[in-house]
Amino acid sequence: VITHVVAPDDEAVIIAELERVAAMVDAVITTGGLGPTHDDRTVAAVAAFAGVPVVEDARWLQHLSDWMEDLGRQLTPRNARQALVPAGAGLFYESIGTAPAFQLTVPRSDRSVVLCVLPGVPTEMQHVMRVGVEPLIHQQVAVEGSEATSYRTLRTSGIAESTLADLVGEPLMFLGTSTLAFLPSVNGVRLRFGARHRDAAMREAELDRIEGILRERAGRYVVGSGDVPLSALVGKALMERGHTVAVAESCTGGLVGGAFTDVPGSSAWFEGGMITYSNAAKVQHLGVLSNTLDAVGAVSREVAEQMATGVRERFGTTWGIGVTGIAGPDGGTPEKPVGTVWIGVANPDSVEARVFRFGKDRASNRERSVAAALTMLWGKL
Amino acid sequence: VITHVVAPDDEAVIIAELERVAAMVDAVITTGGLGPTHDDRTVAAVAAFAGVPVVEDARWLQHLSDWMEDLGRQLTPRNARQALVPAGAGLFYESIGTAPAFQLTVPRSDRSVVLCVLPGVPTEMQHVMRVGVEPLIHQQVAVEGSEATSYRTLRTSGIAESTLADLVGEPLMFLGTSTLAFLPSVNGVRLRFGARHRDAAMREAELDRIEGILRERAGRYVVGSGDVPLSALVGKALMERGHTVAVAESCTGGLVGGAFTDVPGSSAWFEGGMITYSNAAKVQHLGVLSNTLDAVGAVSREVAEQMATGVRERFGTTWGIGVTGIAGPDGGTPEKPVGTVWIGVANPDSVEARVFRFGKDRASNRERSVAAALTMLWGKL
Repeated sequence: VITHVVAPDDEAVIIAELERVAAMVDAVITTGGLGPTHDDRTVAAVAAFAGVPVVEDARWLQHLSDWMEDLGRQLTPRNARQALVPAGAGLFYESIGTAPAFQLTVPRSDRSVVLCVLPGVPTEMQHVMRVGVEPLIHQQVAVEGSEATSYRTLRTSGIAESTLADLVGEPLMFLGTSTLAFLPSVNGVRLRFGARHRDAAMREAELDRIEGILRERAGRYVVGSGDVPLSALVGKALMERGHTVAVAESCTGGLVGGAFTDVPGSSAWFEGGMITYSNAAKVQHLGVLSNTLDAVGAVSREVAEQMATGVRERFGTTWGIGVTGIAGPDGGTPEKPVGTVWIGVANPDSVEARVFRFGKDRASNRERSVAAALTMLWGKL
Repeated sequence: VITHVVAPDDEAVIIAELERVAAMVDAVITTGGLGPTHDDRTVAAVAAFAGVPVVEDARWLQHLSDWMEDLGRQLTPRNARQALVPAGAGLFYESIGTAPAFQLTVPRSDRSVVLCVLPGVPTEMQHVMRVGVEPLIHQQVAVEGSEATSYRTLRTSGIAESTLADLVGEPLMFLGTSTLAFLPSVNGVRLRFGARHRDAAMREAELDRIEGILRERAGRYVVGSGDVPLSALVGKALMERGHTVAVAESCTGGLVGGAFTDVPGSSAWFEGGMITYSNAAKVQHLGVLSNTLDAVGAVSREVAEQMATGVRERFGTTWGIGVTGIAGPDGGTPEKPVGTVWIGVANPDSVEARVFRFGKDRASNRERSVAAALTMLWGKL
């Protein structure tokens, strides 16, 4: 990917950007602007850029008509607009929505440029990317025998970006023409490295070489490879051991369960949990002791441990996770400022709780609590 | 915002993009590349673009040193790199991370361009944007008396984009020089309209005029204004009525609770809930009848109703929500294909359940289930 630009809903600007970008590359992927309203300008702009008229695609029109019939409605003139595409477009009929994704080869003065025009709705875009565009581009690259870059990712956990960089050492000393990016997030730092060569086997060999160096230097912080989310790695580890897990959530309000159930097939190792936002719910549904709540408050080691143990017992699972904290913006005190989160992890033999001091931002405190809970369980597996 | 471009971690490319973009505008906002690793190139690129050296900011160095001390660590040379900024930079000391956000005025041949250089971590970036950059830009615009665009958003629910567009009618007939964008998402279509004028009162009057037309034509589908999430609108409506809610989640696995607890102050109206991913958990923790599960299966009107009623009774709330469905990719049958979701909503007097037929994509089915559950409750308030 050489460049990436966002254009407004303005035909002239879209055409100008297509002209500018097409001069730099062999293929351009666009997303968005394929809807049925006046501000959807991509088809018109692409047709103008290619110098071809807009025509109706009969098969896509039928798809739209069937789609509306399934919803118990009639196709309206406005719906039918989504069957209009530039003449010569090859539609990706596998699309999962109503937007007409297509490819179009546009002859330029010196060579041809392939346009891949995709919907803006993320799930629709991702689907067409996977089933239509990626195969097309791989094929194109293979036919032409041109250079390509392959990437690989290692996911780390429990180490700060700067500490990880010190462990890895000066990248120029081992990268050569390959690249390495540090990608920090609340879920840990990912190391993405890329190798460029005409030959796929050579690219893989170079990626193996770099992965070897990275694992040698920072291996104990590497929790997995690929862009697999931490919840899936934890799930895989649970399944391999025949273990199960349940969650008791206060400040995260269901997001730890949400992260686990993001993983297809999670029903094999995730039983469920309790969202106990109020103190009364913690007592009634998890068996947290009123005395404990009165003595040390809901955000405490004791309550996190009782939540983890309580949910584990009530759901009959191997593991229980309890999360209780002050996400903010209100509810902080001098002793327990906003961002204080206690996380407990229990198994049949023991329970452990740790305190985290995150920041002032509610959304980020919740996201970091989820990541910390997953990391804690991961560390015990 | 005139243009928006994404650049790789390559100093020469970043400088070239700054040159290109600076020729078009009065201010450039950058995000990312302020970390402590070799692939963080923004400070060097901005300094080269401005033609100034990189210098150490003593106050930010102290901040970094305090930050590490809080974590019980020593400042390393690598950490200290994050105190290096272009000479003449005005730091936003309110930043909540370690990245040095700053502004820098760069004289060009014809005029000056203001660069606002922000971190890439979303929460850090948003914070500096709010407390530092937005006031600066508003002030700049006010001082210069230049034209500005004000935007307003109406959130709709329960209506398809194309039907909404037909209700609204031909925008050119009422927009004049103002703009209107249809922004569809799984949470409903938002209508964002903008008015451009030197005078703020004139902008507001024009926005009032357009809002009047939109509400006249599509008012019954408008659930709120501003970029307030649906969960916050539901929460506000619950609070105004002195009502409370609890959730029972299967296929969403905690995401409905996650959406409610995204809202600051949600403890006033959200009590908690049960994540009952397995059938056993539905029986044990929600009182769903084994007979029902055997007779009609977990994804059914009856189970959605029993989940909604069960969680409402167990948490003592006004409202109960039950969500049970097949998110995919596995688990579908001819009668209940992947994407089939039953949602029940109960209050002390009644319970209602509706079935939704979403698509094949797991993540989108879960997201749409959350939106549908919130919309159903909203419709009853």
